Amino acid sequence: MQSLQQKASEWSGVDPNDAFAIDETNLFEKLGLQAFINLSTNFYNRVYDDEEEWFRSIFSNSSKEDAIRNQYEFFVQRMGGPPLYSERKGHPALIGRHRPFPVTHKAADRWLQHMQQALDSVTDIDEDSKTKMMNFFRHTAFFLVAGDELKNQNQSVACKHAANKPAAE
Amino acid sequence: MQSLQQKASEWSGVDPNDAFAIDETNLFEKLGLQAFINLSTNFYNRVYDDEEEWFRSIFSNSSKEDAIRNQYEFFVQRMGGPPLYSERKGHPALIGRHRPFPVTHKAADRWLQHMQQALDSVTDIDEDSKTKMMNFFRHTAFFLVAGDELKNQNQSVACKHAANKPAAE
Repeated sequence: MQSLQQKASEWSGVDPNDAFAIDETNLFEKLGLQAFINLSTNFYNRVYDDEEEWFRSIFSNSSKEDAIRNQYEFFVQRMGGPPLYSERKGHPALIGRHRPFPVTHKAADRWLQHMQQALDSVTDIDEDSKTKMMNFFRHTAFFLVAGDELKNQNQSVACKHAANKPAAE
Repeated sequence: MQSLQQKASEWSGVDPNDAFAIDETNLFEKLGLQAFINLSTNFYNRVYDDEEEWFRSIFSNSSKEDAIRNQYEFFVQRMGGPPLYSERKGHPALIGRHRPFPVTHKAADRWLQHMQQALDSVTDIDEDSKTKMMNFFRHTAFFLVAGDELKNQNQSVACKHAANKPAAE
């Protein structure tokens, strides 16, 4: 069976070494907090205005402000900054926290399209950092698609187990 | 509804600020790789020799060598060292990767008991670092118990949905 990492690399076309090249330099120290806030704000402005209702609706249970903060705090923490996300919300637990959402190949593609446009729009991130971040995002998006498929497998097994139990249980 | 973080703090008795005090100093630079290898080796020697079959069996699908490596690579990465874990396996995805296992309160208590004994046994970790690490472990163990309960909720909803669908679907 392919691992989550193997699936993420195959589907994204990004080698793990390139995905985690974000760790070669401290991007938080290089870019500063405001660059991350600007990126996530630009990204979620696009997401919440998406003309595709199926995609927009994935985010409908969160306010845009919360979505922005959750994202930039995670990025800051993962890219060399203070653990803002974990102090407030705990471990990133990326697969667990995405469990309620349908993280399909199509949704990953659309998420990445908005993120590419957001990166193209912001002016306070240099080209090399943009390349590293986009490789990380591509790999991570498909890592989560792989995590989503695992969820579906587990659920169908669990349902079969449940169906075989006595009704009164 | 209580968040994962709130449940982790309530059940472990560890405030998030104490759990993530591991980030105040770079523990990897302070302790070095061998200290992490020694800790995980000591820990899993205890786990794989546990007299309680119910606990030992949780780990029966992995070799002890793999379990040791997965653990120390994650600890190294999370505590300031190189991203050894992610380069090999991808995001830690703690809740997602624990999905196959019954992470109950009882299992968390027993995991922590072995880890406390392992920390007490190793000589190359100073007392302050031990305290910080144990707070992180306590909080994380119950964070995963909270994640496990979420899984059960989601599964029962998914099974109800599945049961209401036409059989041919």
